[in-house]
Amino acid sequence: MQTILILGAGLSSTNLIKYMLDHATDRWQVRVGDIRLESARSKVGNHPRGKAFMFDVYEPEQLTKEISRADIVISLLPARMHHLVAETCVKIGKNMVTASYLSSEIQAMDNAARKKGIVLMNECGVDPGIDHMSAMKSISEIKTAGGELLAFESSTGGLVAPGFENNPWHYKFTWNPRNVVLAGKEGARFLHNGKFKYIPYHKVFSRIETIQVPELGTFEVYGNRDSLTYRETYGLHNLKTMFRGTIRRPGFCEAWDIFVQLGATDDTFVMENTEQMTYREFINSFMAYCINIPVETKLARYLGFDEDSEMMERLKWLGIFDNTVIGEPGLTPAKILQKILEKKWKLDPDDKDMIVMQHQFDYMLEGVHRKKYSTMVYIGQDTKNTAMAATVGLPLAMIARQILEGKYTEPGVQLPIHPGIYNPVLSELATYGIRFVDEDITLSQ
Amino acid sequence: MQTILILGAGLSSTNLIKYMLDHATDRWQVRVGDIRLESARSKVGNHPRGKAFMFDVYEPEQLTKEISRADIVISLLPARMHHLVAETCVKIGKNMVTASYLSSEIQAMDNAARKKGIVLMNECGVDPGIDHMSAMKSISEIKTAGGELLAFESSTGGLVAPGFENNPWHYKFTWNPRNVVLAGKEGARFLHNGKFKYIPYHKVFSRIETIQVPELGTFEVYGNRDSLTYRETYGLHNLKTMFRGTIRRPGFCEAWDIFVQLGATDDTFVMENTEQMTYREFINSFMAYCINIPVETKLARYLGFDEDSEMMERLKWLGIFDNTVIGEPGLTPAKILQKILEKKWKLDPDDKDMIVMQHQFDYMLEGVHRKKYSTMVYIGQDTKNTAMAATVGLPLAMIARQILEGKYTEPGVQLPIHPGIYNPVLSELATYGIRFVDEDITLSQ
Repeated sequence: MQTILILGAGLSSTNLIKYMLDHATDRWQVRVGDIRLESARSKVGNHPRGKAFMFDVYEPEQLTKEISRADIVISLLPARMHHLVAETCVKIGKNMVTASYLSSEIQAMDNAARKKGIVLMNECGVDPGIDHMSAMKSISEIKTAGGELLAFESSTGGLVAPGFENNPWHYKFTWNPRNVVLAGKEGARFLHNGKFKYIPYHKVFSRIETIQVPELGTFEVYGNRDSLTYRETYGLHNLKTMFRGTIRRPGFCEAWDIFVQLGATDDTFVMENTEQMTYREFINSFMAYCINIPVETKLARYLGFDEDSEMMERLKWLGIFDNTVIGEPGLTPAKILQKILEKKWKLDPDDKDMIVMQHQFDYMLEGVHRKKYSTMVYIGQDTKNTAMAATVGLPLAMIARQILEGKYTEPGVQLPIHPGIYNPVLSELATYGIRFVDEDITLSQ
Repeated sequence: MQTILILGAGLSSTNLIKYMLDHATDRWQVRVGDIRLESARSKVGNHPRGKAFMFDVYEPEQLTKEISRADIVISLLPARMHHLVAETCVKIGKNMVTASYLSSEIQAMDNAARKKGIVLMNECGVDPGIDHMSAMKSISEIKTAGGELLAFESSTGGLVAPGFENNPWHYKFTWNPRNVVLAGKEGARFLHNGKFKYIPYHKVFSRIETIQVPELGTFEVYGNRDSLTYRETYGLHNLKTMFRGTIRRPGFCEAWDIFVQLGATDDTFVMENTEQMTYREFINSFMAYCINIPVETKLARYLGFDEDSEMMERLKWLGIFDNTVIGEPGLTPAKILQKILEKKWKLDPDDKDMIVMQHQFDYMLEGVHRKKYSTMVYIGQDTKNTAMAATVGLPLAMIARQILEGKYTEPGVQLPIHPGIYNPVLSELATYGIRFVDEDITLSQ
């Protein structure tokens, strides 16, 4: 009997835990720990192979005890906590898998992990995760056919499914709201026709691209962090264009940029007197003092947009000009904005979410300039079995299983970019309906 | 014989070291340590009471030995190193003085310093430093006369003196260039007519004020960090307006904002291939790919200014569109920009610098709304005996002397806001020509 230790039973754990319990039969014990015991219990139910328990990553004794009895550790904890789990995994010699971006703390454990012969596998969710696996598969196919890759652009978005985008933003939170509020902070860095390009945070949401998705139409894409690091990861040293982006419906970025321009997404300082401050005062605090004109007019003039525009409708719909009191002390601007948005961008009980991912590969093959579009659209079942939980949890579960069953053994700090991982996982994901539709066109001859 | 230990013999140490040596007579030994022995030597000369030595703050043995033999420690090291000195001062029980902003690390040593009965005195330069002392003196006078302070605005600038501002920016580096390039990063927070106001970094240089300085004319002021913390420091809990700013000549902020908007002041990531990159490519890397229009035109269109404007003249004069190669690997945007600026914003051998400081106090006295302007203008002697070195070094020296002579003994983490410090120091500064000219007018009755 092998023991799978899952740490964290939040939003994205539903499908992961279900997958593990479904496949447990008489060979696996699935232990699920969460700081809120109830979260773990509700996910495990009374499955004979499952065990829910209260888990606190800041209790070193419990951490050591749980990892010692595990055969593999899957961390769904907040990303900043992964390194604590990883340190213990390295010390005790256990494999670990996460869906989060590889951090510098974990990267620094590479040598130690190799010495212990264990795998620390990162970026196994949807973005990062499925994006890496599907991109590497197409890149490998193009190379194998003798093609030369010229440009690679890859975008992903967590959105509401068609029919449920019933608000002026065509957006709701389908994922950690805090990450959405802070998105773009690192700016965007990418490569365009051989030129390195750098977009600072305050320009990320105005310098956007558009993409077309079959059957769904036009979407906006804003640049996502540092695309340049993936040139090396993907082995694409001579590539001339490399871009990674985040997908939103048209109009979102322009309106979101208002909050960025104001400074309302700042998370570095605590505002004064937020207990008594209203939403309207919150917005007004980012603009110059002037009592003669309404806050709405002042905002439109300050940031140069039309007071009768759709953008103003989006802002008004959020209630940011209301006299509602924030009513909580010690908040940063970003936390106040999140509080306001959470009331409005909430999924209704019948809503479904959607993940959209699109890769675009420009390449030369036998003297012909070709372009391949590879698109995944996956719609969630309901607000519990979301597309986000499925596309994050299932690849994570499948990769953990590969390692647990000894099918992937390369030690050290890893990403899922090797065919031995991505081929079986992408095939298995397809059986769950998580699959890519490809279109390959000739650009010029 | 008492020993004064001065750590750091850089730009701002000239007047400090001279003051200490001039007043040493047969009672003080002045030890000056710097990582570059030559810097310390050139400042000490062959004065019989002075001793220059090579000093490395990262050598704990040397740090302990030097502090042990000192009666007072003055740190002019880069601000990030002060806490290492402070820790040792607290451990050994020695008083310490710096010209830098009080850091959270040093604030945390308050209890330990009190227990040891030692003073950790911070913010003893010009800004912060002379600003605190002169403001507290005026505030105290207004209160003593029975007045009620309504608004307090305080601005300081390190500039070139009139007659030497002979470039399109009317600005040259008279101080640590890196601090100038990174200025404003924390944004600005202040209080205006009872409303808290927050300006994010990318709006700091466009939301500016102007002030009038007697005999010098109009200057621009941009918001400087968090003004709100000083309400408590100054004991001004009911104040309705509180603002601290940095002074520049007209036109500077609008042109500097171009670099902020581009992202060229970013210090958080290293750019690719800076060894071969030209200045022109550096600027182009912050704009979208487009080979059809020149970089100058693209920049003017991107940031919405006139290609034939004075602003473009300022930018062109800096050489940012030239094909000069940066020629150094591993640089952040901020470091590249600094490198470009250092060639142009260099003081000529005959140049003089200038410190301008202006406080504005709105107050009610006997039913009359009055306004007091308190202005200091101090011009340096030459490029070595600068206004910056005098106004940073002299108050620092005088405050250290007060403590050394046992005239100020309040233990713990301190700022120079007590009359026992600021009265004698401001009087002594006046004998060096560092003095304020006051104007007090009636606004309404």
